[in-house]
Amino acid sequence: MEKKKITFADIAKYTNFSKTTISRYFNNPDSLTIENQETIAQALKDLNYQENKLAKVFANGKSEFVGIIVPNLYLHYYAEMLNQILNTYESFNYKFLIFAGKNNEEAERKYIQELLAYKIEGMVVLSHTIPSKELASYGVPIVAIEREDQYVHSVNTDNYMGAVQATSLLLKNNCDVLLHINSNVPKNVPAFGRIQGFLDTCREHQANHEVILKDLGHSHQEIHASMAELYQYMEKKYPHMKKGIFLANDTHANSMLNIIFREHGALPEEYRIIGFDDSPASGQAIVPISTVGQQIGKIAREAMEILVMLMEERKKRRPQPQTELIHKHVTPILIRRETTD
Amino acid sequence: MEKKKITFADIAKYTNFSKTTISRYFNNPDSLTIENQETIAQALKDLNYQENKLAKVFANGKSEFVGIIVPNLYLHYYAEMLNQILNTYESFNYKFLIFAGKNNEEAERKYIQELLAYKIEGMVVLSHTIPSKELASYGVPIVAIEREDQYVHSVNTDNYMGAVQATSLLLKNNCDVLLHINSNVPKNVPAFGRIQGFLDTCREHQANHEVILKDLGHSHQEIHASMAELYQYMEKKYPHMKKGIFLANDTHANSMLNIIFREHGALPEEYRIIGFDDSPASGQAIVPISTVGQQIGKIAREAMEILVMLMEERKKRRPQPQTELIHKHVTPILIRRETTD
Repeated sequence: MEKKKITFADIAKYTNFSKTTISRYFNNPDSLTIENQETIAQALKDLNYQENKLAKVFANGKSEFVGIIVPNLYLHYYAEMLNQILNTYESFNYKFLIFAGKNNEEAERKYIQELLAYKIEGMVVLSHTIPSKELASYGVPIVAIEREDQYVHSVNTDNYMGAVQATSLLLKNNCDVLLHINSNVPKNVPAFGRIQGFLDTCREHQANHEVILKDLGHSHQEIHASMAELYQYMEKKYPHMKKGIFLANDTHANSMLNIIFREHGALPEEYRIIGFDDSPASGQAIVPISTVGQQIGKIAREAMEILVMLMEERKKRRPQPQTELIHKHVTPILIRRETTD
Repeated sequence: MEKKKITFADIAKYTNFSKTTISRYFNNPDSLTIENQETIAQALKDLNYQENKLAKVFANGKSEFVGIIVPNLYLHYYAEMLNQILNTYESFNYKFLIFAGKNNEEAERKYIQELLAYKIEGMVVLSHTIPSKELASYGVPIVAIEREDQYVHSVNTDNYMGAVQATSLLLKNNCDVLLHINSNVPKNVPAFGRIQGFLDTCREHQANHEVILKDLGHSHQEIHASMAELYQYMEKKYPHMKKGIFLANDTHANSMLNIIFREHGALPEEYRIIGFDDSPASGQAIVPISTVGQQIGKIAREAMEILVMLMEERKKRRPQPQTELIHKHVTPILIRRETTD
């Protein structure tokens, strides 16, 4: 199956150009006339030449590689974000080297060093392990998504606005008490906006409310057990009151819904539920769950647009340093299904 | 933040070796004594040398890149397979260039050409678009997963055995009629084994059975509508009979379960359900769904082991061509939850 390797000498012979001219075609095509470029391009087709892009990268330093660091692909959010980033290939032509970090800071650091050795031109970072100050020191353009971003550019969902939308919907549903269930999100992580947005909206409307922040576990079993406990807690503390529950994500919302539904054989009017993410779990639940949809495609595209802009700038003869950090926020979309009125 | 670039000349000066010796250290280290290798390694540390792996690849042709072609990352199965393949980095040190094909044959072909131009050493192909005969002609080692594999190496779930396990469980549940609901899977795709395994097991036990093969749609709405229609069909055709339903995957099983559960406020004894894949949807359903679990981690590892073996062979001075195609089958695992007895 191996084809005979076509060399610059073969192309030179076929076109009657010098080897230097052929080399210029690959490394500095603008130095040739359009006509000569076309002659050589045709010769490459005729000879079935297999371009060696690595040789080209070696010559001009433009690898067209972008590194992507995700914490995992188990969560639908990360898988879909990666999907959408990969889809930008057709617009920008950058190729993606992917690493799933599994919260192992040392492994991640080692892999990033390896990426840098392969001359990646930039990085999109979704994992939370390495502080942004360190990321900024690596000397390549970096865009962060939904993580601490003090020293790097970023694109995030407007989590605060999402929480305001969710809480406002529960208020309109005439709930007697509003509850927000979440883990202890650090203040410098964008998702903290979900807690703040809930609190501010409740206070503004002087609504009876409670924020429950605790470690809810990671496995399905752990989450289910936490939700079962919280259900008992709410039943006891707020009997005969209409409870509006805003959960941190759709997986949690689905787990809470299943517990209530199995207890009652239906979702009673006394419970209104809204999640976050618009993951498949929300639409495919026993009662389709209202949620706050993140515009993952838009976030991926905005992140790549910023990254491409920074990477292209560096290839200019006199690159202008980017002096200000860019922090973009993408508005989420309220999706009303059957767990709210 | 940019560091001054350390050249071979700098390393030569620091160590008192010639530039040729330094070059040999990178391209053919075994030609130096261990002692000299250690001296140079220490110098690289002292000088904070940033290795240029691309230069090394250019010199020896070993890119350590593997291309992965997936149809999408929307389905949990593909996301988890990619996750598990990425996890082999720590064992084999190959880096992964990923492409999500979205069933666009031309885009996929173009991308593969680009991967080849980057001197990838091998490919793992999960998408169904390009025939294996064409894949085999690309001149790099290829391992297919769960797709037509006549001309390439492959690792697949033993779909037939999975179907036998699922069907046997429904038989043990004393169902009056067994139903298998699937799409029209082509015979040369591994997943066809699910249909054949069901049929053979039913016939062997002379069980009353029906296979329903039809386009069930792709979006959640389409699938839900198909399942609602099939539920009505079963209610009418098999009233008061205990129905054992084996569905092609957990998403379908979850949709069918939700329809039955909402109709009855519970899963009645008259319906037993089993899915396929052990995706999160099955464990997190309103009633945890029995399923056939694919050993995704094992499949990913076996595929990479075969690929690495083939890639390493090619780097030998006199590579032995692999004359026989390898087709491995990984046994799936029956997972009994609450939708079966």
